Amino acid sequence: MNPLFDIAVIGATGTVGETLVQVLEEREFPIGTLHVLASLESAGQSLPFKGKNLRVREVDTFDFAQVRLVFLAAGEGATRAYAAKARAAGCSVIDLAGVLSAEQAPRIVPEANAKRLDSLHAPYTLTSPSASAVALAVVLAPLRALIDVQRLTVTACLAVSSQGREGVVELARQTTELLNVRPLEPRFFDRQIAFNLLGQVGAADDSGHTALERRLGEELKEILALPDLKVAATCIQVPVFFGDSFSLSLQAKAAVDLAALEKVLDAADGLEWVEKGDYPTAVGDAVGQDVVYVGRVRAGLDDPAQVNLWIASDNVRKGAALNAVQLAELLIKHYL
Amino acid sequence: MNPLFDIAVIGATGTVGETLVQVLEEREFPIGTLHVLASLESAGQSLPFKGKNLRVREVDTFDFAQVRLVFLAAGEGATRAYAAKARAAGCSVIDLAGVLSAEQAPRIVPEANAKRLDSLHAPYTLTSPSASAVALAVVLAPLRALIDVQRLTVTACLAVSSQGREGVVELARQTTELLNVRPLEPRFFDRQIAFNLLGQVGAADDSGHTALERRLGEELKEILALPDLKVAATCIQVPVFFGDSFSLSLQAKAAVDLAALEKVLDAADGLEWVEKGDYPTAVGDAVGQDVVYVGRVRAGLDDPAQVNLWIASDNVRKGAALNAVQLAELLIKHYL
Repeated sequence: MNPLFDIAVIGATGTVGETLVQVLEEREFPIGTLHVLASLESAGQSLPFKGKNLRVREVDTFDFAQVRLVFLAAGEGATRAYAAKARAAGCSVIDLAGVLSAEQAPRIVPEANAKRLDSLHAPYTLTSPSASAVALAVVLAPLRALIDVQRLTVTACLAVSSQGREGVVELARQTTELLNVRPLEPRFFDRQIAFNLLGQVGAADDSGHTALERRLGEELKEILALPDLKVAATCIQVPVFFGDSFSLSLQAKAAVDLAALEKVLDAADGLEWVEKGDYPTAVGDAVGQDVVYVGRVRAGLDDPAQVNLWIASDNVRKGAALNAVQLAELLIKHYL
Repeated sequence: MNPLFDIAVIGATGTVGETLVQVLEEREFPIGTLHVLASLESAGQSLPFKGKNLRVREVDTFDFAQVRLVFLAAGEGATRAYAAKARAAGCSVIDLAGVLSAEQAPRIVPEANAKRLDSLHAPYTLTSPSASAVALAVVLAPLRALIDVQRLTVTACLAVSSQGREGVVELARQTTELLNVRPLEPRFFDRQIAFNLLGQVGAADDSGHTALERRLGEELKEILALPDLKVAATCIQVPVFFGDSFSLSLQAKAAVDLAALEKVLDAADGLEWVEKGDYPTAVGDAVGQDVVYVGRVRAGLDDPAQVNLWIASDNVRKGAALNAVQLAELLIKHYL
């Protein structure tokens, strides 16, 4: 009989945490006891798991010595604090918030750089990268063997669920207010997001970049093992509840064989290539799916060394919860 | 006393035509008689102009010899037919549909290539370019003196009003259906546009490009007089009623002096530069305005020869109606 693992999910009542618990069940992860944890305010709620209701406990009083593996789907401060506690108790940790440094917690997308695990030792501290990095890495990883990628220019159109439940509630509220011709008072977002695009997500630094944009660039270089890759990232907030979309241009060193590229995409793991004539959308295709969708594969208008792509991915599921569970599956199979 | 001009607006009941009539009034265009024309179905409606109601007449029976200047804000077929009729009657024509070839009708954005008019002769046949080309040209034109621009990569996020009134109605209808948890049956758009992004606008050709994307590339090269410019354009449809947004990366030959660039933007005509720390949005800033908004000016994360910008512009007003009226103002001032 295969061994069972005692596991904790911190931030279990958030959009990602909830989906994570669901994905663990769907994929029949070999769980002994599952502890679903959250902050004091959310403790006492319950979560469905394998036909039962799990009671959400307060993370503050949790004894990490009870578990081998901890998923951290919480905010920045909480992640830092509980990562340290979990590691002190000898747990392996998968951080979904991306607050630990690359040195502390390598960023891994199984379809792209699973091999990175070979050089690490138990207990493991890993980062499941940002949803944008996951989606883009799944598409770009198989292309590395075919193309010498020099530069990426990406506009990441992020669903409001990338801001958690409050983002979802605010888009619904604003939309309803506007349709009822009531005056709009933005709350969670600092301006109108309904029927509008916000060209910046979070504060910009002195150079004009946001933390999200810097993180995406760093993550892609690390995950794709292309330290010299040039990345231009613009992360925008769009009035979509679930599912991120990406307009990606990649610049190769030489003319790209598009037919060969499409063949590679068609055969690659973790993605679904959509042929010319059709194209994927976040809501129509990607949401609820375990694969990243990629379509509109075409060369530059004036440059055969350029490839343009349109990518759609479920930010909560594929970009976060599933990637973290895939990571855990690799851990328990080969390393733990 | 300044001369007055007899004018016809074809497609006067469309979103652009209606705004065009409004802009003519606002800017006190020296009009003798204004003829507002449309197809048979729309004839008989009325449009407010200078405190009166103008009756919309059927364009088919109109005698173009009555006017000197014709604005064509109609569909493709109508534009071709009535452009020929108007020119045969000796009228100058401004085409807002972009169906006439560059040789027949040079594309002009007053802030960028007004000088082009010097080499032409009356009667004039001009194109007011696509709303995307207008917005981008207004921002890029003043930068040409500062930067040797090699390459543009742009994701154009188009409001549904770029598809006319039917696009606007359909976004409202779909949004209402979804908020009321009624099953969605897409009509005007072929799939869900409410709370979703469509990564392709119109059909793609064998190379995967849409007519809109090809047109944008060609227009920018012509308007900016940069025939060797490489353009990668992705036009997407977003759930925004009015106001286009653009994520633009430009690649220069050498490192760009950002302070000098911001100074140029700050002084340029037809645009409003938004300083770091803030950023413009389509709905919050651009809609209803006569200027294009540009912000988030920043170098590439790893490349000082790259500049990234976020641009917002009223597609109906600044991108179409106002640009056409600005063109007409140039014509009557210097050439007609």
